[in-house]
Amino acid sequence: MDGNLSQRPPRQEGIRIIPIPGIPLVRPGDDLAALIIEAADTAGPSLQSGDILVIAQKIVSKAEGRLLRLADVRPGEDALRLAQETGKDARVVQAVLDDSRAVVRAREGVLIVEQSSGWVCAHGGLDHSNVAPEEDETVALLPADADASAAALRGRILEETGATVAVLISDSHGRPWKMGTVGVCIGCAGLPALWDQRGLTDLFGYELVASEECIIDELCAAATLVMGQSSEGRPAAIIRGYSRPDAADAPARSIQRPAEKDLFR
Amino acid sequence: MDGNLSQRPPRQEGIRIIPIPGIPLVRPGDDLAALIIEAADTAGPSLQSGDILVIAQKIVSKAEGRLLRLADVRPGEDALRLAQETGKDARVVQAVLDDSRAVVRAREGVLIVEQSSGWVCAHGGLDHSNVAPEEDETVALLPADADASAAALRGRILEETGATVAVLISDSHGRPWKMGTVGVCIGCAGLPALWDQRGLTDLFGYELVASEECIIDELCAAATLVMGQSSEGRPAAIIRGYSRPDAADAPARSIQRPAEKDLFR
Repeated sequence: MDGNLSQRPPRQEGIRIIPIPGIPLVRPGDDLAALIIEAADTAGPSLQSGDILVIAQKIVSKAEGRLLRLADVRPGEDALRLAQETGKDARVVQAVLDDSRAVVRAREGVLIVEQSSGWVCAHGGLDHSNVAPEEDETVALLPADADASAAALRGRILEETGATVAVLISDSHGRPWKMGTVGVCIGCAGLPALWDQRGLTDLFGYELVASEECIIDELCAAATLVMGQSSEGRPAAIIRGYSRPDAADAPARSIQRPAEKDLFR
Repeated sequence: MDGNLSQRPPRQEGIRIIPIPGIPLVRPGDDLAALIIEAADTAGPSLQSGDILVIAQKIVSKAEGRLLRLADVRPGEDALRLAQETGKDARVVQAVLDDSRAVVRAREGVLIVEQSSGWVCAHGGLDHSNVAPEEDETVALLPADADASAAALRGRILEETGATVAVLISDSHGRPWKMGTVGVCIGCAGLPALWDQRGLTDLFGYELVASEECIIDELCAAATLVMGQSSEGRPAAIIRGYSRPDAADAPARSIQRPAEKDLFR
């Protein structure tokens, strides 16, 4: 009746969530890992093995040059129709469609798509806050492969500092049924994405029903509490003291529910 | 162009998330606030003003006697039909229906309802893990009014310790589109539920698009990382060092999206 003890993480002595201030404006081609390491060394605690580094998607996209000038976008028929339905800029709609697999919902003020990487979210994650001071017609797309971005950043940090950290790339998504956005994970390297508690039992030996905890979304939600979304300028945070489940690393993409098994598309 | 500075929380110096071990098994009628205060005083840091205390729904329900013996449940026609559709125990289905306003989705293995308090979740939050050692036919319902439960616990803690804390009651919910559950908030006292960032601007003065952050769900997600769902027996945690937005307190219920404005029911 007892659960699989090897899956159970050790007791937590508490977790710290530490913002990293002082990261400069990021531009295409910047060595983002170096900027974050320097900011952490200067202002906060230096990265150390076992840390989880959470980085806002926006600065990853900027470093990777995932920027699009709206002046270069020519909206087609579908975009013009959806722009009318939603009340949105037709060029923005075209940019969203170009980076999407499917439209999930379109209504006045709402455009929810399955973005090319598989995330279901408003505008396919595209936005134009904090992008460029001199160019208000530029938008940032999601990284082409945020799991690969996380893995590359993780490798660079190991190379530069010798510290084996996990890297999570966070975004803020709205949800059905509830108001407001929460921090979520769209890229992961160095952690299991889900903590599989199937086979674990509760205090009385019942098998747990809600059996998989999405720890990477919880970690990104926690980090968002110190990162802020606005002019705070703290697009990264360190989570220290979290005891990871003893399971294999998995990419963020592995938490996507296949469309054919999803009751809400 | 600048945002409303008064809405912007001060810089965070980092947050700590501290589990409270040693809370004994909770039984109907127990003084839950007293049990938590004693456990925190004994094993962890004592509660202090400014702390956010996150408590798992299950022990609140147990203290409030929100328990149901399945042997006392007589499934009606709807429950028998839904039990067949979903492959679930007809008595469990009847118990879920009795505490629900509407069925949102029912399929093999899936029963998602709008629970009486307005939360859309699997089984209306009903479950039978960690309920009773001698009685495997007993299930726990959600608190009848978790916001009121949170307010009462907050009042008792102030009375007993002199500390003004916020109290959040957490549950773990699945989500559309993604695998796994995350910690969410179903009861809140002493915090704003949403951080309204409308009117705030980004580093370059653009108005933020994703404008409301659901801080209570993020706080409960963060706490869940140290609380665990299984036999860990740590059904409460303290969050220390979070700088709350300067906005009025609001109940968890205020984050529920009205059904008529929801595109996913």
